[in-house]
Amino acid sequence: MKTIGILGGGQLGRMTIEEAQALLCRIEVLSPDYPAPAADLAAETLVGDLMDREAVLELASRVDVLSYEIEHVNAAALYEVEAAGKPVIPGAGVLAIIQDKAEQKRMLDEAGIPTAPWALIGNGGQPATSAGLLAAAASLAASTTLPGRTTGLEGLPVVQKARRGGYDGRGVAVIRNKQDAASPAAGGRLLEAPGFIETRIDFAKELAVVVVRDLYGTTATYPCVEMVFDPRVNLCDSVLMPADEPASVRIEAEQLAVAAVAALDAAARRDATVRGNATAGAAGVFGVELFLTKDGALLVNEIAPRPQNSGHVTIEACATSQFMQYYRILAGYPLGSTELLRPAMMVNLLGEAGADGEPVYSGLEKALGVPGVSIHLYGKRQVRPFRKMGHLTAIAATAADARIRGMEAREALRITGIPGRSSHRNS
Amino acid sequence: MKTIGILGGGQLGRMTIEEAQALLCRIEVLSPDYPAPAADLAAETLVGDLMDREAVLELASRVDVLSYEIEHVNAAALYEVEAAGKPVIPGAGVLAIIQDKAEQKRMLDEAGIPTAPWALIGNGGQPATSAGLLAAAASLAASTTLPGRTTGLEGLPVVQKARRGGYDGRGVAVIRNKQDAASPAAGGRLLEAPGFIETRIDFAKELAVVVVRDLYGTTATYPCVEMVFDPRVNLCDSVLMPADEPASVRIEAEQLAVAAVAALDAAARRDATVRGNATAGAAGVFGVELFLTKDGALLVNEIAPRPQNSGHVTIEACATSQFMQYYRILAGYPLGSTELLRPAMMVNLLGEAGADGEPVYSGLEKALGVPGVSIHLYGKRQVRPFRKMGHLTAIAATAADARIRGMEAREALRITGIPGRSSHRNS
Repeated sequence: MKTIGILGGGQLGRMTIEEAQALLCRIEVLSPDYPAPAADLAAETLVGDLMDREAVLELASRVDVLSYEIEHVNAAALYEVEAAGKPVIPGAGVLAIIQDKAEQKRMLDEAGIPTAPWALIGNGGQPATSAGLLAAAASLAASTTLPGRTTGLEGLPVVQKARRGGYDGRGVAVIRNKQDAASPAAGGRLLEAPGFIETRIDFAKELAVVVVRDLYGTTATYPCVEMVFDPRVNLCDSVLMPADEPASVRIEAEQLAVAAVAALDAAARRDATVRGNATAGAAGVFGVELFLTKDGALLVNEIAPRPQNSGHVTIEACATSQFMQYYRILAGYPLGSTELLRPAMMVNLLGEAGADGEPVYSGLEKALGVPGVSIHLYGKRQVRPFRKMGHLTAIAATAADARIRGMEAREALRITGIPGRSSHRNS
Repeated sequence: MKTIGILGGGQLGRMTIEEAQALLCRIEVLSPDYPAPAADLAAETLVGDLMDREAVLELASRVDVLSYEIEHVNAAALYEVEAAGKPVIPGAGVLAIIQDKAEQKRMLDEAGIPTAPWALIGNGGQPATSAGLLAAAASLAASTTLPGRTTGLEGLPVVQKARRGGYDGRGVAVIRNKQDAASPAAGGRLLEAPGFIETRIDFAKELAVVVVRDLYGTTATYPCVEMVFDPRVNLCDSVLMPADEPASVRIEAEQLAVAAVAALDAAARRDATVRGNATAGAAGVFGVELFLTKDGALLVNEIAPRPQNSGHVTIEACATSQFMQYYRILAGYPLGSTELLRPAMMVNLLGEAGADGEPVYSGLEKALGVPGVSIHLYGKRQVRPFRKMGHLTAIAATAADARIRGMEAREALRITGIPGRSSHRNS
């Protein structure tokens, strides 16, 4: 059995280990914290910063295959590992492209995959300025036409994105008007980091498709889901599988997601050829987020090169979960079936507003009493307001019933905290 | 969260922990061996004999709830734990009845649950003798009529069972004729332990139903399965869910299984009342094995007071697995849905004839490539011929297709060993 190394200590690694124990997995992790969700179950944990080159190389030296459950890791170190001939899955070039959202957009453009129109602010290499943003917005508005786009004379509103470091809604700002375009010091919302703007898509829905691709290029998709956002925190809050859209839309979304991952694979392979490295390319699990515009067009938004929140629902709803699939790919086994067994709704379980300290889970008994409901807690030792502490999934005969069950179970649950306390038992 | 103690270190505890990690379980085990399947994943392992009173009490003292994943544990110690007011699930009286197969038969008789006719050999308290067995057989034949029974003039053949200590086919002998009834020293097959005989049922099939019952008496059943035995080793080899029988037969089997567990509960509660103890009664997971006679009658054969091999198929085939159900019951949560998601076949993965030493798993890649197939390995450090090393489950749109997939995957797999070596990594 291969020893697998995963950069990151969070819930994605934890759920991967939970599932892969059935195949006697040996998974070691590099975790910034200890204890931590994945570290609790890992065969071994190296505590260190995910950006620390030495720490990444140290984990790589201990394992047969290296992977990552979060994008914010040292990509240069992954290139070194790949250059030394040790498999990195997905390949280092995949991560490098994903880490730079402008590169990701360029890659999708080159492959002819529809995305929201975009333009660099300045040359994209300098911190963004108000003047640069407004110039880019005017230029973008003049050069693009797109259904669902709504812009005023100055090309606003736009969505500003930092090229690097965004996560769970951070690194993204909606610039509605000139005031928003001012720097925060001047009362505006400008992100003062190198970045770009995108046309703001007045979308009907956000959809997502998890794509899995093994080391030999065999690809499969899970059924297209529909994401429901919690506006309080700009976090994906609930996921419905399958999306409540006609089959034609779902299939188009799945095909687009496959094409996006194939484009990512091709780009990473070109990059590896230039470097003279072998690469696994876009082998792995990919969460592809899409906009469905009000006119019925589909645009790829972003790709996550790892199991994704939108795929948690696969644990109960599908024949093989995204986590078992991830392990199968890392271990060199063939893909499992992605067949839908039952419609399902996944709901994130977040810390309550004001929650702090050692987590306290209330209402588990009641929530588990709702038919078809399963609960996954991540074992985080500290709760914070809106922190993802777990999720629940409700399956049912229809998506509508799954939604009702999911909401009922969620209403029963509260995650609060005992301030000043944190729990550090090993289990 | 409650701390749960489980007596036993085998695969049943292991799979329970694998599933219950999603609910942040804290499970400690008493295991005769270390390392061992459940001990690998337990929060803490006490190494000791399951019959050792001190060891059982020690584990009980550390936990909130005590349970067992194997029948061969110190029942007297469980009574002590119960008397001290700590919950034992299922109750100590349940185990005491199950441990004595004659008591189990008597309990079923008293509740009017059909079983194979039986008679004690002698008074059932002395080691069995040839003369005693033959007398019992003649007496049983004279006193019973049952469809499907086939006996000769002397009341043979019969099935002899030791009252205590049988497991996986041990403690059971088919006595076909007078020669078989002789002691092993005289070339016969007599079990020289206190026991009884049963009419040999010329059954069409063996069926099984997993019954789950929470602390409040709420009961649910999983769909009735059909068991296929491997005659080489008298081990349940494959399980098909649902059984390939008319719904009327499956429903009758499920009702009979529920009635058998209710009878066990009532008997354990009477026992607890006499002792003046509180008891959980028959709360827990119960594997109820039944014979379907060639005339279509159903007879309860035996009850296992724990997750059972016949229920492994529930991990993939049902909304909630028997293992998650077990944890829900132990932790005081309500039962989950037992709904069938897909027809499925489970196949035990046994060590090859002649296998010895450190296990070597061949063909995993090929088996995992069969659509709908999942594999569970138990992490046993030593393979032996026909030892249960894991299982696989194939799901499909129909039971017939699941059977084909299950057989195809099984054909691809071989578990052999490297003699003289054993692996002791901790993971």
